[in-house]
Amino acid sequence: MIDLNADLGEGFGRWTLTDDEALLSVVTSANVACGFHAGDPSTMRRVCALAAERGVRIGAQVSYRDLAGFGRRAMDVPPDELADEIAYQIGALQVFARAAGSRVSYVKPHGALYNRVVADGEQAEAVVAGILRSGAVSDGPLPVLGLPGSRLLAAAEAAGLPVVTEAFADRAYTWAGTLVPRREDGAVIHDPEKVITRAVGIARDGSVEAIGGEPITVEARSLCVHGDTPGAAQLAWRIRGALASAGVRVEAFT
Amino acid sequence: MIDLNADLGEGFGRWTLTDDEALLSVVTSANVACGFHAGDPSTMRRVCALAAERGVRIGAQVSYRDLAGFGRRAMDVPPDELADEIAYQIGALQVFARAAGSRVSYVKPHGALYNRVVADGEQAEAVVAGILRSGAVSDGPLPVLGLPGSRLLAAAEAAGLPVVTEAFADRAYTWAGTLVPRREDGAVIHDPEKVITRAVGIARDGSVEAIGGEPITVEARSLCVHGDTPGAAQLAWRIRGALASAGVRVEAFT
Amino acid sequence: MIDLNADLGEGFGRWTLTDDEALLSVVTSANVACGFHAGDPSTMRRVCALAAERGVRIGAQVSYRDLAGFGRRAMDVPPDELADEIAYQIGALQVFARAAGSRVSYVKPHGALYNRVVADGEQAEAVVAGILRSGAVSDGPLPVLGLPGSRLLAAAEAAGLPVVTEAFADRAYTWAGTLVPRREDGAVIHDPEKVITRAVGIARDGSVEAIGGEPITVEARSLCVHGDTPGAAQLAWRIRGALASAGVRVEAFT
Amino acid sequence: MIDLNADLGEGFGRWTLTDDEALLSVVTSANVACGFHAGDPSTMRRVCALAAERGVRIGAQVSYRDLAGFGRRAMDVPPDELADEIAYQIGALQVFARAAGSRVSYVKPHGALYNRVVADGEQAEAVVAGILRSGAVSDGPLPVLGLPGSRLLAAAEAAGLPVVTEAFADRAYTWAGTLVPRREDGAVIHDPEKVITRAVGIARDGSVEAIGGEPITVEARSLCVHGDTPGAAQLAWRIRGALASAGVRVEAFT
Repeated sequence: MIDLNADLGEGFGRWTLTDDEALLSVVTSANVACGFHAGDPSTMRRVCALAAERGVRIGAQVSYRDLAGFGRRAMDVPPDELADEIAYQIGALQVFARAAGSRVSYVKPHGALYNRVVADGEQAEAVVAGILRSGAVSDGPLPVLGLPGSRLLAAAEAAGLPVVTEAFADRAYTWAGTLVPRREDGAVIHDPEKVITRAVGIARDGSVEAIGGEPITVEARSLCVHGDTPGAAQLAWRIRGALASAGVRVEAFT
Repeated sequence: MIDLNADLGEGFGRWTLTDDEALLSVVTSANVACGFHAGDPSTMRRVCALAAERGVRIGAQVSYRDLAGFGRRAMDVPPDELADEIAYQIGALQVFARAAGSRVSYVKPHGALYNRVVADGEQAEAVVAGILRSGAVSDGPLPVLGLPGSRLLAAAEAAGLPVVTEAFADRAYTWAGTLVPRREDGAVIHDPEKVITRAVGIARDGSVEAIGGEPITVEARSLCVHGDTPGAAQLAWRIRGALASAGVRVEAFT
Repeated sequence: MIDLNADLGEGFGRWTLTDDEALLSVVTSANVACGFHAGDPSTMRRVCALAAERGVRIGAQVSYRDLAGFGRRAMDVPPDELADEIAYQIGALQVFARAAGSRVSYVKPHGALYNRVVADGEQAEAVVAGILRSGAVSDGPLPVLGLPGSRLLAAAEAAGLPVVTEAFADRAYTWAGTLVPRREDGAVIHDPEKVITRAVGIARDGSVEAIGGEPITVEARSLCVHGDTPGAAQLAWRIRGALASAGVRVEAFT
Repeated sequence: MIDLNADLGEGFGRWTLTDDEALLSVVTSANVACGFHAGDPSTMRRVCALAAERGVRIGAQVSYRDLAGFGRRAMDVPPDELADEIAYQIGALQVFARAAGSRVSYVKPHGALYNRVVADGEQAEAVVAGILRSGAVSDGPLPVLGLPGSRLLAAAEAAGLPVVTEAFADRAYTWAGTLVPRREDGAVIHDPEKVITRAVGIARDGSVEAIGGEPITVEARSLCVHGDTPGAAQLAWRIRGALASAGVRVEAFT
């Protein structure tokens, strides 16, 4: 059994990026942009309404405040400020999730923040503090979606938040189980066949081939499919089909 | 009995404007900026915490998205977009209000939006629609604070939202009971003694001297005191004292 | 002889909109976004470099400060503030135009500002004041591109700036020669054949069919082709071909 | 002989910070904010006009794009993007400097960018690349104001730009001649008498007492006085008086 998540609602005003409608018919969890790296209020409302209608779980895809850089530029935000920015974003999304009859069900950091909290304990704890600050508008503690072994998941666990591990079928892994940085050659796998094979390997066997060729263990309750590439929804459908054929049930994590 | 409200938390990042701490010791309702014309997340948290501690009611001071213009430039925002922007701001503030053990208790538009919805029915209805969209994160319908006779209050009433009328002791009124536009001579009353006299007249007698000199009727369950001028808190204290001497109880509206 | 202009560089950070490369091979004047409604610095540099390389004239497409609304929401900006915002944008673009060995050769307002200065004399004069303030970084007075009969062109002429009239082949005109507002039915003409016929009519005969069916006179030294629709560059090529067949030379205005 | 520089124009819209008018009567170089961490177009125009009137040199105080953090949060901006952002800011300021009959005469990075380029060669080179890109709107190569020994000044020199060293009379130095980070105790010297003594020591003797007590050599052609503290202008005047008494001439660098 595995969850499929994708980044959605990543347009802003006149600009669109992700094919929200198509992806919401295939994924089980939607990481909805909250306005800091992308995601204007009307887009947030529409994505939440559609997600609720299709029974897709809504997550807050929280980010550094950086529209110009799409949240892809790491920032030295003081912890308290970062925590408040996280809480703000969750609160804003909660309005649209609730208005759609659903609710924010988990939190996943975006872009540079996602990468930063793999190893930066201070920012990891700030993200968790922000989630806790938003607790009063949530039904119980919000699960945190992140990389296994990350400081983020450690901080979440220490704070009593549920954690959900995820893996990427289209990203290369080192033998140590970390992601090969995007700027390095071979970091992103473009061949759909390979991506599908890896998705099945991760979901069924908890295993994937590292960049050196040897198999490594990858723990993942959710699989991230990218939504900002052409054909993203179609590839997600093929992955879903392959998972079904391999006897893996695709279902939102609980 | 009258409520005293003030605009608070109108700094942004490094910049401060309102003397939040001093004003929170004298007003009964705090219109907290939500990030669109002013108000960063950390300021929102601090103001909500202090308001909760002092038993001051928290309201969402919603605005056009316009940091550069401090929300003072009217904008032709399409109604649906405006409604979503309003809902977004209320949701963001709700996080900090709840985290402080309080809640968002009312909504008051800021600046150019406040003025626009006096006569613009379309935007007035959009603001109300936004408040309704935020309903699922509120405890019951949120009261709307505004000018008596405004399209905003009419739209709120039509939608079943409670309405709270307010008056301004330091603004000149026309014989028709509307505010003299800021750009006109004599629009703002700077003499503290006059402001205090007018405050008492409004609160006790429901009456104020219009710009021509004749007394007019002013309906107000709340009195707005400005927080962004030097000596604002001190003047508010003097108003409060004069109201007490005149036998008017200062208390949050219910 | 006619000029062909298009709005270019209207992406922002991660988001793209206009097919800058394709359009720069067909138009003679490029209205480059300057960062207020679209256009990050790197996009501005790239578009200017490409325009210079292809001998396409660079114009400053100035806008209200409104990324969230793509400059499509009219704003009551005080004249002095607006003038400074215009000057700021022209200066920022000038850097990239000069670095590319070219220069800013004209100014065209974008979106809601374009529409507003058709009839709003105060804002029209503010735009002209902004252009004049930027004069010290320009080689001589900058021509203003706008609608014939607009307050903008009148204000520009009164200030001694050259004016360049433009027409739209894909927009419906009233019998009075003004554009049918976008929100009305039939305001935008989608049939490429009709657009091409109208382009030729405007360029060769100074005439176009108004929405009621009767021909009206349209004065235009430049023809605007839209760049933010799929197939925009291809349609522009077809227009350019049809103009050539009709004996109209396509050339930048002087 | 020494130059006195201060950060000016650091308000934004409704918010003010620096006492621009008072400081422009005492400093010889004005680091004018360009809109990325502070500084709206109208403030830029006013500060440039006043600086030109008083014969104060205008410099571009360039920053990361971060209004919410006042440019005090280091950001991993890709070099090419950073260079373009620097060029954009210089171009925007040049408009107002030229309109005032003056010109941008130097560049000084602000806040987190200033600190980052002390040791980060990649960003230091990006800042220099941005200055070079803006070259076509400048009269000759722009001098760079920065910390002696910084990667920024090294990169500027390597690129053929003049460099100007500066020192801070109100900041503690380590024995190695670097600034004690702001977060450490004693990093900022608040006692005006001490600040004045240090200013004279730096300007006349090229020497200052390090945090351990021993004197160290400090090379500085310019002295930075802070403008965002109460009494900033008055302290600057006292420094200027003490320099005069010590026989040091205060004059803009050339």
